[in-house]
Amino acid sequence: MSDYVKGLEGIVAAETEMSFIDGQNGVLEYVGIRIGNLSANSTFEEAAFLLWNRRLPKPAELEAFNKELRASYAVPQAILDRIKTMPKDAHPMHVLRTLVSELSLYDTDDVNTIEPEKVQHKALSILGHAPGMIAAFDRHRRGLEPVAPDTSLSFAESFLYMLNGEKPTATMARAFDICMILHMDHGLNNSTFTARVIISTLSDIYSAITGAIGSLRGPLHGGANEGVMHMLNEIPSVDEAETYIMGKIERKEKIMGFGHRVYKTKDPRATDLQGLAEQLAKDTGNEELYAKSHTIEVVMERELGAKGIYPNVDFYSATTYHCIGLKLDLFTPMFAMSRIAGWSGHILEQLDGNRLFRPAAKYVGPHDAPYVPADQR
Amino acid sequence: MSDYVKGLEGIVAAETEMSFIDGQNGVLEYVGIRIGNLSANSTFEEAAFLLWNRRLPKPAELEAFNKELRASYAVPQAILDRIKTMPKDAHPMHVLRTLVSELSLYDTDDVNTIEPEKVQHKALSILGHAPGMIAAFDRHRRGLEPVAPDTSLSFAESFLYMLNGEKPTATMARAFDICMILHMDHGLNNSTFTARVIISTLSDIYSAITGAIGSLRGPLHGGANEGVMHMLNEIPSVDEAETYIMGKIERKEKIMGFGHRVYKTKDPRATDLQGLAEQLAKDTGNEELYAKSHTIEVVMERELGAKGIYPNVDFYSATTYHCIGLKLDLFTPMFAMSRIAGWSGHILEQLDGNRLFRPAAKYVGPHDAPYVPADQR
Repeated sequence: MSDYVKGLEGIVAAETEMSFIDGQNGVLEYVGIRIGNLSANSTFEEAAFLLWNRRLPKPAELEAFNKELRASYAVPQAILDRIKTMPKDAHPMHVLRTLVSELSLYDTDDVNTIEPEKVQHKALSILGHAPGMIAAFDRHRRGLEPVAPDTSLSFAESFLYMLNGEKPTATMARAFDICMILHMDHGLNNSTFTARVIISTLSDIYSAITGAIGSLRGPLHGGANEGVMHMLNEIPSVDEAETYIMGKIERKEKIMGFGHRVYKTKDPRATDLQGLAEQLAKDTGNEELYAKSHTIEVVMERELGAKGIYPNVDFYSATTYHCIGLKLDLFTPMFAMSRIAGWSGHILEQLDGNRLFRPAAKYVGPHDAPYVPADQR
Repeated sequence: MSDYVKGLEGIVAAETEMSFIDGQNGVLEYVGIRIGNLSANSTFEEAAFLLWNRRLPKPAELEAFNKELRASYAVPQAILDRIKTMPKDAHPMHVLRTLVSELSLYDTDDVNTIEPEKVQHKALSILGHAPGMIAAFDRHRRGLEPVAPDTSLSFAESFLYMLNGEKPTATMARAFDICMILHMDHGLNNSTFTARVIISTLSDIYSAITGAIGSLRGPLHGGANEGVMHMLNEIPSVDEAETYIMGKIERKEKIMGFGHRVYKTKDPRATDLQGLAEQLAKDTGNEELYAKSHTIEVVMERELGAKGIYPNVDFYSATTYHCIGLKLDLFTPMFAMSRIAGWSGHILEQLDGNRLFRPAAKYVGPHDAPYVPADQR
């Protein structure tokens, strides 16, 4: 047995052919292709195919993939009925976790299968349902009926359409599509690890993705993008950003959206998102918000860059999502919606040559204790 | 970075003061007290208090604990209404996972708290609700209304009462209580590890327990007790048990309920459960079922004992649960109902000195791949 490895830092717990991360040099690749290359040229759907099949699709393959994905845009009526009974003040991440779990109740085609081809179909179905479920809940809390899907739309367009009831501009749709590409996979992060741990009992994809959503909720993981927006909202103007951040640094408070267990330089996804945020801020009159973000980055690099603390994926996500018009509490569900593709790929990898995750615990309590009767305690 | 450690075997991923396992000598202790000592003298409620507080309760403390637990026997009306709309052929583990997730939507008291005292209250509430939710679903699929709880009953009694609509005999209630004690905690098994991984993002107890239920479902984990019963049902009579098992051994098929990553001798919980199973089988006219089980154990010990393959907790659970009158697909939910206590204790331990679980993955795919345009693939 090993010594206690807190947080399993440095322990290689899986092999993957999906994403490669070089934290020292700020490199992220999906199946060998640089993330910036994909965000410039690819689409969410194509990148999902790439991660699941470890190669780019031929045009006919992509068409078939899209057709199947789009067939799942429509949320089952039982789930739509269910959403209408949900408390309107529930956090959408609790809602999404519950609804993905609930989808299993309506899956009558061998729900517990671990046969790879079937699992991949279920992954497409869960992925296809997610945008409509999130949008329907958001509309429910606004007192609006769900929007019926339009299967001529891409995954990114479809979400914004089902949320707002109108089609996004090409710029918005492309920006959102890029966000979806950037958030899709990232090595053995906590939620991906959760999905692999769960599926290693040969459970089922619903169980694994439900667990992963629960993990992503946490403020030390996907929940951090909400925290960034809260911070930006706390800063009254760009002129006060430096003072605000210096105060936080002096008080040794955590600054949301900075630092990463793996990256010791700027997260390449942050570089991409920064470009998007800057452009969208201009287009939508949010220049001040972008300027605050940028000032924070400059101050942070000056003060803490030497310690390897740089913007991570969450930092410019916040400004980007805000400019796209998303409510604060939808930021983490957006992360989840994209990451379902990554989790599914890892579930498939784990099932291929599975071994049950069963680490050891070090017992640090007493031994040979007596059962003291109640009246003598 | 380490070499790839498949299944994290031998890696110490947590410290715990809850359960101690000596797999070579077949010893299990909760906070230092031998499991056989607890099953002989304690109750489920007292053992849960022990695991959460690392000491046995004084009588007034146990009374307060019971009072709070019993106050949660009643399932929220919104959840009962929800259960009535569920497909009757859903597996109760998918249902339980969904309902525990759903409870979060109705928790209006700081649902995402990680403050230990509040988390402990939420743990008691989830634990208290679980029996009623499982029982209500089982009654729903039988076309029956839920049974209102009787708060004069123990946890074990209450479940059987809410399931059957009549109070269990003292023998049945005690047997079931012992099952609940034996299944409560067991080091860093997969579902407990799942709960700790999820909560390490500072997520919330609903997310962590929901994920753990998804893990426990798997046939390599809690789902195995169902597999044992399927096997017992496949054997026409005790006379054919030896031939059946020898056939499986020769074909190198997995024999459910035998072997364990940690135990290389008889699981001490199996010893306890065997005693229960034998007694209950006599009381309920299931002598043949017990005799089949016992024959399998004898043959397995003769053939594979030298390899350290012995009965685990699932093996005699099957006969015990069958004699208590539980349907096959409720076996794993029973495991879950008890294990909620263990998961909750580990969630509290993890939050005390938390560090995010973020292991590494070894990338084994290509590098520096081009983005080949669609028409050139």
